[in-house]
Amino acid sequence: MNDTDLALASIEEIGRLFRKHKLSPVEVTELMLARIELVNPKLNAYITVTAELALAQAKKAESELFAPHGRKGHRDRGPLHGIPVSLKDNIYTAGIRTTAGSKILKDFIPKEDAAVVGQLREAGAVLLGKANMHEFAYGVTSNNPHYGPVRNPWDLARIPGGSSGGSAAAVAAGLCYGSIGTDTGGSIRIPASLCGVAGLKPTWGRISCKGILPLSPALDCAGPLARTVGDVATLTGILYLRVGREPNMAKVSALRTNARKFCLGIPRQLFFDALSNEVRSAFDSALRELSRAGITTKEISVPLLDETEDAGNHIAWTEATLYHQQQGYFPAHAAEYGDDVRSRLEMGNKVLAVDYLRALEIQRQFIQQLHLALAEADVDAIIFPSTAIEALRLDQETIRLGAHEHPARALLLRHNRPANLAGVPAVSVPCGFTHSGLPTGLQIMGGVSSEALLLRIAKIFERSHPQHRRPPV
Amino acid sequence: MNDTDLALASIEEIGRLFRKHKLSPVEVTELMLARIELVNPKLNAYITVTAELALAQAKKAESELFAPHGRKGHRDRGPLHGIPVSLKDNIYTAGIRTTAGSKILKDFIPKEDAAVVGQLREAGAVLLGKANMHEFAYGVTSNNPHYGPVRNPWDLARIPGGSSGGSAAAVAAGLCYGSIGTDTGGSIRIPASLCGVAGLKPTWGRISCKGILPLSPALDCAGPLARTVGDVATLTGILYLRVGREPNMAKVSALRTNARKFCLGIPRQLFFDALSNEVRSAFDSALRELSRAGITTKEISVPLLDETEDAGNHIAWTEATLYHQQQGYFPAHAAEYGDDVRSRLEMGNKVLAVDYLRALEIQRQFIQQLHLALAEADVDAIIFPSTAIEALRLDQETIRLGAHEHPARALLLRHNRPANLAGVPAVSVPCGFTHSGLPTGLQIMGGVSSEALLLRIAKIFERSHPQHRRPPV
Repeated sequence: MNDTDLALASIEEIGRLFRKHKLSPVEVTELMLARIELVNPKLNAYITVTAELALAQAKKAESELFAPHGRKGHRDRGPLHGIPVSLKDNIYTAGIRTTAGSKILKDFIPKEDAAVVGQLREAGAVLLGKANMHEFAYGVTSNNPHYGPVRNPWDLARIPGGSSGGSAAAVAAGLCYGSIGTDTGGSIRIPASLCGVAGLKPTWGRISCKGILPLSPALDCAGPLARTVGDVATLTGILYLRVGREPNMAKVSALRTNARKFCLGIPRQLFFDALSNEVRSAFDSALRELSRAGITTKEISVPLLDETEDAGNHIAWTEATLYHQQQGYFPAHAAEYGDDVRSRLEMGNKVLAVDYLRALEIQRQFIQQLHLALAEADVDAIIFPSTAIEALRLDQETIRLGAHEHPARALLLRHNRPANLAGVPAVSVPCGFTHSGLPTGLQIMGGVSSEALLLRIAKIFERSHPQHRRPPV
Repeated sequence: MNDTDLALASIEEIGRLFRKHKLSPVEVTELMLARIELVNPKLNAYITVTAELALAQAKKAESELFAPHGRKGHRDRGPLHGIPVSLKDNIYTAGIRTTAGSKILKDFIPKEDAAVVGQLREAGAVLLGKANMHEFAYGVTSNNPHYGPVRNPWDLARIPGGSSGGSAAAVAAGLCYGSIGTDTGGSIRIPASLCGVAGLKPTWGRISCKGILPLSPALDCAGPLARTVGDVATLTGILYLRVGREPNMAKVSALRTNARKFCLGIPRQLFFDALSNEVRSAFDSALRELSRAGITTKEISVPLLDETEDAGNHIAWTEATLYHQQQGYFPAHAAEYGDDVRSRLEMGNKVLAVDYLRALEIQRQFIQQLHLALAEADVDAIIFPSTAIEALRLDQETIRLGAHEHPARALLLRHNRPANLAGVPAVSVPCGFTHSGLPTGLQIMGGVSSEALLLRIAKIFERSHPQHRRPPV
């Protein structure tokens, strides 16, 4: 394998090479650090690179993994042992600057690790650094005014999506093997989709948000991004707070993917009102590939989907503003925010309490209606395009679809808020390219705690639909 | 016993007379209906008198109670069997108009009984009618613009308090033996205090609000008013949703009241900042009487008490407006509300979502702080004057205390919202009279589900402090 092959290999493949002693954690970490040095100036995917820490962790992993079996010191911590990963910069790392992409926190060094960081350390992962992001995770472009915009590895003139834009760009470009992001309204799935990688937003509460800077605690989720569904499953398996005899996500990749016939619902509301032609045609070919893979689909109806946007906005805006007020950031430091984030915080200070309560009522009803619709139609999950449009140019504000000019950022959010509002899991998996070579994503969203099922379906799709292209960076 | 003695006797005494066959349910119901005819035109305590239903229920109770023991048809349903009571007019009664004191619902006839109505029927109570109230329970005067103001039996130029003003006035004047009211911010305890009767606001959720027109569901409670603590305990025993081996409230009156030494906390915050001289001196003599009865007191500190007013208002205003919007009453029928209620509904439409969420946070912290303060000081409950001032004149807007002119209605609410915000029980028990002969109340508030304890303490106080006066009506 050449260096690029190695850099773009899966966690699974790297782990196999480690265990055959054909590659070492230090070697792969050095490869990643060299690529970051080379490529990151173009992508701006990292805010902080923790080279020394990464090499120390790699050495430790190497000494554990490579100590002869049965000898003192030998230890195999499992599939993430020695694997270089990155963390979105709103995830607290003890002793390592955690900016949340903001100027306000530019010198903030947490005293403690987030819960997910502890889980990754325990699993033997190597931390390459902290990924760039939309300021305070409050936006979908990752056009960061303080640390520079993150750029899409498939077209440097375009956004990677956000808010976990640095995570997705780094994964797509082979600057890490996986990354942990956060998702309040699509912040994992949007950049995964626009950068051609896989990402999981889990069931609310099933991956700990302890030690992660909140945006809207009622909707916030942490979750992994990686290049393959199997790698997302591996990372999910390590982070997921399992209950009872639930399947171990890390073993999903080993499951026989043809074990049963799946049926997927295609909701008539919301997801197909406004799509770019390219996204529509990628979705249509995904349907044909699913059908060839033996998965059936049917239309289903979840009328309240149309009300999820307003409800989600009222909850997220209010909670975000409240947090920034309680921290003393807003309005005291209003001038230190980017214009877009400041204006969102101002909007949050205008939401009426009655509208907030109506949003909670919509949320309760939507959760019921979604689960009833899945049960009544007897479908395993629903599918739709991860985002209505492909990656925007860095400065693009609107997009023309048919006769109408749409606000572009709202279109990116639109398909993603429902899963956050309902607290249910959703996976975005690569779904082919537009004519100009931009990635698109397929989203698979299911009932509460259906992660293992979603990952199995995503894996079937991925197998039926392999991605052979590489980003030009 | 003459008719006035009989009308002002306790539920316990009437039940004893029934069982000695010295009085019958029909006789006592006829007495009540005659008194209502005579006195209600002055008090305006009832909106609807259900004379026919009352007599039919009384006959049924009489035939059950008076059928010879062991004979077919004999049945003793317990302490409320054959006892005439009233219901606040926001409690749904199947087939009987339920106006909630509003013009909007002036012709509303529910199809179903509220849960508490079913409990009273099962207990054999006789329903005399529906009590007048502040419009939609949204105010503390009971100056009802549609059905006329309720008047205080101790001084017809003054308010009875509210919103359960008709209930308290009817109980005080001997126009029923007990009444069920509701309390969102003092609506049972304020009129109980101003009319010289006893009233209980239970732990949130422990008396069903099913079938009661809501004001603010997060704070709403239903509960009884009666002339003695024993009668309040009897009514509570019938309505209370017991869990496990909790004491039966109805048996509280039989408990030995000197069974243990009680210690009560006197909070330094909120309750003693602004008191009328008359209320202060009544409270001071209450303390002396408690001490003679062997109850000790100590000062305790619950700093968040000072923030309960704003927090409670933000929650109540928002929820009230949301309900009236969802029902299509407001703003569609804005002209049909009294000015005060309309302006409160308008205020509720201006509360910001961030302030609402801050109020919920204060609520969580206050609940913790209150229970910790009770535990740390090792006190059984806290005591304070039920209302800061005595009954207002019907048209009185402000009251002078020392050098300051205060908004009078806010002062009535002030001591009462904390129990609603914390969801804890509180009893108001008569506490003597002002020099001009107006009643005052002592409030005893405890931890979650401490009703039995509060009623025991209230009973000790009542015994040490008997009320021999009768209202002049």
